[in-house]
Amino acid sequence: MDYQLILEEIYEEIKPYLALGKVADYIPELKKVSPDNFAMVLQTADGEISKVGDFNTKFSIQSISKLFTLTLALQFEDKRLWQRVGREPSGNPFNSLVQLEYEKGIPRNPFINAGALVITDIILSRVGDAKKAIIDYLRLLSGNSSIKHDPKVYASEKKTGYLNKSIANYLKSFNNLDNQPSGVLDVYFYQCSISMNCIDLSNACSYLVHSGYSPLTKEAVSTTRQTKYLNSLLLTCGTYDAVGDFAYRVGLPGKSGVGGGIIAVLPGQFNIAVWSPGLNDNGNSLAGVKALEMFTTITGKSIF
Amino acid sequence: MDYQLILEEIYEEIKPYLALGKVADYIPELKKVSPDNFAMVLQTADGEISKVGDFNTKFSIQSISKLFTLTLALQFEDKRLWQRVGREPSGNPFNSLVQLEYEKGIPRNPFINAGALVITDIILSRVGDAKKAIIDYLRLLSGNSSIKHDPKVYASEKKTGYLNKSIANYLKSFNNLDNQPSGVLDVYFYQCSISMNCIDLSNACSYLVHSGYSPLTKEAVSTTRQTKYLNSLLLTCGTYDAVGDFAYRVGLPGKSGVGGGIIAVLPGQFNIAVWSPGLNDNGNSLAGVKALEMFTTITGKSIF
Amino acid sequence: MDYQLILEEIYEEIKPYLALGKVADYIPELKKVSPDNFAMVLQTADGEISKVGDFNTKFSIQSISKLFTLTLALQFEDKRLWQRVGREPSGNPFNSLVQLEYEKGIPRNPFINAGALVITDIILSRVGDAKKAIIDYLRLLSGNSSIKHDPKVYASEKKTGYLNKSIANYLKSFNNLDNQPSGVLDVYFYQCSISMNCIDLSNACSYLVHSGYSPLTKEAVSTTRQTKYLNSLLLTCGTYDAVGDFAYRVGLPGKSGVGGGIIAVLPGQFNIAVWSPGLNDNGNSLAGVKALEMFTTITGKSIF
Amino acid sequence: MDYQLILEEIYEEIKPYLALGKVADYIPELKKVSPDNFAMVLQTADGEISKVGDFNTKFSIQSISKLFTLTLALQFEDKRLWQRVGREPSGNPFNSLVQLEYEKGIPRNPFINAGALVITDIILSRVGDAKKAIIDYLRLLSGNSSIKHDPKVYASEKKTGYLNKSIANYLKSFNNLDNQPSGVLDVYFYQCSISMNCIDLSNACSYLVHSGYSPLTKEAVSTTRQTKYLNSLLLTCGTYDAVGDFAYRVGLPGKSGVGGGIIAVLPGQFNIAVWSPGLNDNGNSLAGVKALEMFTTITGKSIF
Repeated sequence: MDYQLILEEIYEEIKPYLALGKVADYIPELKKVSPDNFAMVLQTADGEISKVGDFNTKFSIQSISKLFTLTLALQFEDKRLWQRVGREPSGNPFNSLVQLEYEKGIPRNPFINAGALVITDIILSRVGDAKKAIIDYLRLLSGNSSIKHDPKVYASEKKTGYLNKSIANYLKSFNNLDNQPSGVLDVYFYQCSISMNCIDLSNACSYLVHSGYSPLTKEAVSTTRQTKYLNSLLLTCGTYDAVGDFAYRVGLPGKSGVGGGIIAVLPGQFNIAVWSPGLNDNGNSLAGVKALEMFTTITGKSIF
Repeated sequence: MDYQLILEEIYEEIKPYLALGKVADYIPELKKVSPDNFAMVLQTADGEISKVGDFNTKFSIQSISKLFTLTLALQFEDKRLWQRVGREPSGNPFNSLVQLEYEKGIPRNPFINAGALVITDIILSRVGDAKKAIIDYLRLLSGNSSIKHDPKVYASEKKTGYLNKSIANYLKSFNNLDNQPSGVLDVYFYQCSISMNCIDLSNACSYLVHSGYSPLTKEAVSTTRQTKYLNSLLLTCGTYDAVGDFAYRVGLPGKSGVGGGIIAVLPGQFNIAVWSPGLNDNGNSLAGVKALEMFTTITGKSIF
Repeated sequence: MDYQLILEEIYEEIKPYLALGKVADYIPELKKVSPDNFAMVLQTADGEISKVGDFNTKFSIQSISKLFTLTLALQFEDKRLWQRVGREPSGNPFNSLVQLEYEKGIPRNPFINAGALVITDIILSRVGDAKKAIIDYLRLLSGNSSIKHDPKVYASEKKTGYLNKSIANYLKSFNNLDNQPSGVLDVYFYQCSISMNCIDLSNACSYLVHSGYSPLTKEAVSTTRQTKYLNSLLLTCGTYDAVGDFAYRVGLPGKSGVGGGIIAVLPGQFNIAVWSPGLNDNGNSLAGVKALEMFTTITGKSIF
Repeated sequence: MDYQLILEEIYEEIKPYLALGKVADYIPELKKVSPDNFAMVLQTADGEISKVGDFNTKFSIQSISKLFTLTLALQFEDKRLWQRVGREPSGNPFNSLVQLEYEKGIPRNPFINAGALVITDIILSRVGDAKKAIIDYLRLLSGNSSIKHDPKVYASEKKTGYLNKSIANYLKSFNNLDNQPSGVLDVYFYQCSISMNCIDLSNACSYLVHSGYSPLTKEAVSTTRQTKYLNSLLLTCGTYDAVGDFAYRVGLPGKSGVGGGIIAVLPGQFNIAVWSPGLNDNGNSLAGVKALEMFTTITGKSIF
């Protein structure tokens, strides 16, 4: 299949959709990004890369960081981690507190904010400098040592992230954080503010295509079993309260962020990084989801 | 791969698990079934069948019927159907009323009881004799014209199914049933009480392997697009509030029933029907899920 | 204090409010009543009666019947009754199912529909003919042997009362009904469809003014202790999810019905029956609540 | 009635109940208080005081402070305040976040923690030094200029009050706090840590007996209308999720705190301050509620 051609076709057809999304405004710094941006990068298992649009432009990875911190935390603890976080779709928005109250402080999965905070707490307890550990990890996985966080986005979230502060303190009240909420939040805001472009993201996710092995680092990032688990979690929990819709329309495991990025994977075959800042009602990139849907419809390639 | 050998290996190893499950007791008639039963049937895309255990023993398909009624209803209406039922995992038990109240009578998906009742209502509105239409459909799909419902199970549910009666009346109070609740419930109890064995089930599900085409009927049961959708719905919503766990451990789209049956699919490759009446806490067959997990672990074959 | 004069003053001032309410439309038969109706009857502890408006016009007592069935059921069982129904305000609409699910089928209090159905179930288990027992009880309490139910309202609710059917079946699924849901519902729809006028209602509630003693029957309807309990329940649970607002504005224990009637009590001093069919958003008579608020503001007489 | 004699009788009978309660342990400093403490002070409208037990021992007033801050805030704004806080019983524990999510950041009433934080926010916006304003207010109302906060309890809550921190940040995320959460929490922890004895409390609450007039300050603390409102709020919302039970058993408007204090009022006649640190399951003083129940049973004096 000529993936480059297909991506170019999608790039043509996606343009009317760019204006339909709404750039995230709850983090003041994010709403400065133009909704006209669009990038799509596909990388096959052989390492062949196809790409269209603004694939060199960095953007805030936001919740996509949750995938990488989970992968990192699984190196430190595997079984114990799942005593503190569940593995079920939440059926609720990513920032809901309702379920957390009924389920006594055990977040439904590592991809809602509450779950991701617990994962960050685990990393914080294991390494001296959690921020450095996370940024180093992303540089290693992506093979790009120039990756940085965006200090303005970081400061913006740190100042206005009341809901995340509420969630972290709530977790602590249930004794499901080992560290102080302020320390966990500081790392969490940092990881969300990391900037990457679609090529970086695609490289960083190669291990999900290769059963855990990274062609870049020439090492296993996760075990075969863990990689299968990660992909299943992406499918059932990776796109907020729209996992059913995403599975239905796209049919690939994926993780989205409110910066407009999405990473999707067909295990054994390829991954796709897509970016467009305008969001749909569920907080997923509107044009990004549409582009992925076009792709799996045209190629017939999905897990289903 | 020698699937017959693998199934026999699993059959050996599964025995200690048979006693761990708990046979459904909320339908009086169901608890009479012995927990020692176990059957597993795998059918490849080529039609090759491997099988172990009590594969000729019929059991109550219960919620597995929801898959077939949905497939049937999609022939009558596609877009409109999704205005009355959602496509998201519920994150709640299959019989919860909470979500239905908050979401004004629109069930989360067609595989929780409320959603399945709406699907049955659609069929009832479209055909003269819905019971006959459903049993005929299953006979056609499975190629077994002797398939019947179990009058005792039917009578048992009809007498004691207060929760389903509550749900049906609740849907009606939101105007999300066109027919009278009692009429819808009558068909629903009937479809749940249909008895099939694992070979019947595997045959009936061939269309999910073949993008909608049934080798038995030599016709398309569903379109390619619909089949992709059905498989994605099975993955995100098919196993009650354990979809995350099922995706994580088994990694295949699947539908379970409280009779202890499960049907699982690897699109393009095979489907597996498994049966064991003892259930785990989520209402899925304990040994059935375990057997499927063993299978995907041994073969490495899953969608992830 | 010249209560007759005060009531006449209120009658003048209430007119603009009559048009603001909305006659209940979920029971088809009820919406036929004109919103212009208004009646107010005050009866002091001495038996002196003041009255204005349509005090001879009968209307559907609806939920006010819950007060009388509770009083009747307390004669049969006192302690045991409170194991099946709570005594706390629900904080939710009168017909919510959410709380019932979280609290495993124990209704919050006897004045939400679920709780009232349990009370009716208790009566049904204790007497041969529950409908006759209830109507006889109301004739006795009010001293008016011509009180009847309205067959049209009864038939209307019986046909369309899907939400109540849902609730009754839900209670049964938790084993919190001893009788069949259909039997309990039949009595419940009957009791709600009883028609009384404001004079009847005021007479029927004299026992709440006199610590349980009825000047009409010359007997104790409830014990002193029970009467104190009934009045406290009226205050904390008698006006749906507007108990705070009613206590705040009116400051009297009271019970409302969607027929537009309200009965309010100042223990030891008087009771007031008021009727106006237009309802506010909480399902309480808009002009009725306003008239009671005017009364307690003018007279300074409330429990607070 | 000889109230002193009645209080002494209660003091005798209450002893077996002291051991049944559980001293609050979620604030580390509070659990150091001995459960043997008991005090009861009754003050009539005429200023006659009856008292038994440890009535000179100061204790942490905790949530009772919410009554006084509400009274103070009503001086600053009346109508506007009720746009930010409701007046309905919550039907949930005092620290629940569920309702706040469903109701978009508007707390149900000023006596649950979320509502009290909004009230404190109002005071903070209106006065230069909110801590000083509150302690001065309590000294004025009680006529005891030596009233202080307990620095250990204050520090203890400030360190461990994660749930309150979560609630304050949650309110802020809904824009229902004007000030920073940390500033509001600082004042809130301070007000909760104020120590008073039962005589102080009884004096401070005289205005609730006298329609707002304080015999101590010779001035109106609240208007007649506001006082009626305050008493109704105490009844419907003052004792956490046990308001129904408290109204049922005691039958007086009241406010409790987890320090074991309760203040109860019979408007126009008397108020009672009672203290015993052992709590029941709802967070109300076990012996305190029992003593009040004994009192209203013996005297027959309640609002019902």
